[in-house]
Amino acid sequence: MGVSLRDVAVLAGVSVKTVSNVVNGYAHVSAETRAKVEQALSQLAYRPNLSARNLRLGRTGVIALALPDLTAPYFAELSRFVIDAAAEHKWIVVIEQTDGILDRERRVLDGVRDHLVDGVILSPLAIGVEELAARTDAAALVLLGERIHDGPADHVAIDNVRAARDITDHLLALGRRRVAALGAQDNTASGTAPLRLAGYAAAMAAHGLPQRLAKVERFSRAEGAAAMSRLLAAPEPPDAVFCFNDLLALGAMRAILAAGLRVPEDIAVAGLDDIEDGRFSTPTLTTLAQDKAELARAAVRLLRRRFDEGPGRPPQEVTVGYRLEVRESTAGRVPARAAPSGPRH
Amino acid sequence: MGVSLRDVAVLAGVSVKTVSNVVNGYAHVSAETRAKVEQALSQLAYRPNLSARNLRLGRTGVIALALPDLTAPYFAELSRFVIDAAAEHKWIVVIEQTDGILDRERRVLDGVRDHLVDGVILSPLAIGVEELAARTDAAALVLLGERIHDGPADHVAIDNVRAARDITDHLLALGRRRVAALGAQDNTASGTAPLRLAGYAAAMAAHGLPQRLAKVERFSRAEGAAAMSRLLAAPEPPDAVFCFNDLLALGAMRAILAAGLRVPEDIAVAGLDDIEDGRFSTPTLTTLAQDKAELARAAVRLLRRRFDEGPGRPPQEVTVGYRLEVRESTAGRVPARAAPSGPRH
Repeated sequence: MGVSLRDVAVLAGVSVKTVSNVVNGYAHVSAETRAKVEQALSQLAYRPNLSARNLRLGRTGVIALALPDLTAPYFAELSRFVIDAAAEHKWIVVIEQTDGILDRERRVLDGVRDHLVDGVILSPLAIGVEELAARTDAAALVLLGERIHDGPADHVAIDNVRAARDITDHLLALGRRRVAALGAQDNTASGTAPLRLAGYAAAMAAHGLPQRLAKVERFSRAEGAAAMSRLLAAPEPPDAVFCFNDLLALGAMRAILAAGLRVPEDIAVAGLDDIEDGRFSTPTLTTLAQDKAELARAAVRLLRRRFDEGPGRPPQEVTVGYRLEVRESTAGRVPARAAPSGPRH
Repeated sequence: MGVSLRDVAVLAGVSVKTVSNVVNGYAHVSAETRAKVEQALSQLAYRPNLSARNLRLGRTGVIALALPDLTAPYFAELSRFVIDAAAEHKWIVVIEQTDGILDRERRVLDGVRDHLVDGVILSPLAIGVEELAARTDAAALVLLGERIHDGPADHVAIDNVRAARDITDHLLALGRRRVAALGAQDNTASGTAPLRLAGYAAAMAAHGLPQRLAKVERFSRAEGAAAMSRLLAAPEPPDAVFCFNDLLALGAMRAILAAGLRVPEDIAVAGLDDIEDGRFSTPTLTTLAQDKAELARAAVRLLRRRFDEGPGRPPQEVTVGYRLEVRESTAGRVPARAAPSGPRH
């Protein structure tokens, strides 16, 4: 503690100005010099006086990222991208898990009012448009995800209706006709589920096919498995299932395989989110990959613009791209590589 | 905003004292009254003035949880338990991802010094014992996991050596003899890897069997798959693999199945952590379940005791229990349930 830029400069054998350039992330420092300075910074355990700099700007240098559930890999992966994007502005990200509880979402927003954080990126489940609009501090808020469109704050998301339609079209293009949607929810007023359902419904209607729905309360593996078991018990089970996220799809695959059926030969399965789990499952999971890095970058960019331009600018909607990742759970497995000899017994 | 206890009391038709009892979580309120008050609290969007209460105590009411990687499901699941345990003390948890970067671990600890948070639960990767000992604010620090034993701060973990030996013994008890350990690391001075390796080595030595090691740099699915592919390419591949965590094991299973081999008939696979993924994979994953809820509760309990008793008390070591979860990846699959008719084509 109490290490100064001068101490670092002496140890690294460079000027104080050079140390300052490295600490502030300026580009015009040679890689060699930068390495020397960074080693000295590390050796002396130098900590930049962020507080002083931010006080000058009237800021804390901290933003809050509020997500419903960190144990959902989608949100955990998104967190990493937000941390990376915020680091480019030298912002620290503190993460709060709301569990979609209204009071916790409110508390995160209070952090802006109380100057504990400069801004909030919120994936809202419970809080309503009216309450958000009534908040005088909403200027430093970016909404992430599907809950609230055309609301009182900046908003980043993918086009969920089109995404869901693309996935359903992929299953139909395989020749499947008894395509089920797994993930509809009863509180259809909110969340991504109604949007994904609408995309599925449009694709089925375009082919004159009836809908088959399996409802869930939460997007989890366990609910995916349970809902799939109900579909399997129906008089005419589906030959393909579009699950509204990858966790549901991984649960559904487990139920199908445990019932002695094959994926995709008997039932093709597709998810949405492209979480890492689905790249290592057997079969690997066909999914729709939202550009999570760009979602995070766009959210941070919008927050940055709010800081710079203030609350006057009207709320902005940013729609981020996606791509269909066709894998074994719909396309079938590639032939196994030649098995190495030996390990049988 | 500006809602008072009196406003809530009027709406709920109870006394201010009763509202206060509910807000402060005291037990002696009937369920019916509590429900009435909670509805009024919610309707008026009442927020307890935590700051005032904490200021009185000289506290922020916020603790930091600093973890290397939130995209590792083990840490995400652990976070949820810490949030739950902290909620019992009405503490808010902010989560910081360190990526094992020394400077970020230091910054989290600075939060205590700067009174931004009351205490820190840290899963350390980079910071050393000496530096921790030198920190005057280490009193409000609990270490979680294996990096630092008998150090200068309270510490919670499982007995990793014994746990690893139990898993290896399970594989040996199945009659497997070419048991490999997947997850050893080259920087063997730190981390859980050397402890888990020691447990494996002890079990193999007790049976007079040679070690088979596959090293990794990180505990990830991708590295598990790559390391397993190297083991499969060896002249005499293993007939069982103990992977040092579940992510490695899920990656290893993928590599085995993609090579056209069977789990567990050709190669039995076991992990460690009991993350949810392994309960829904096919085959399901045998693992060692650390009592994550108790790890979290113990960490919060130790922090609480530090707040109450101050830095005088010597550092405490708490060892938390675990249990072996034997599943399909070592025990084989249960026969498939009768397949429902219909979905073939």
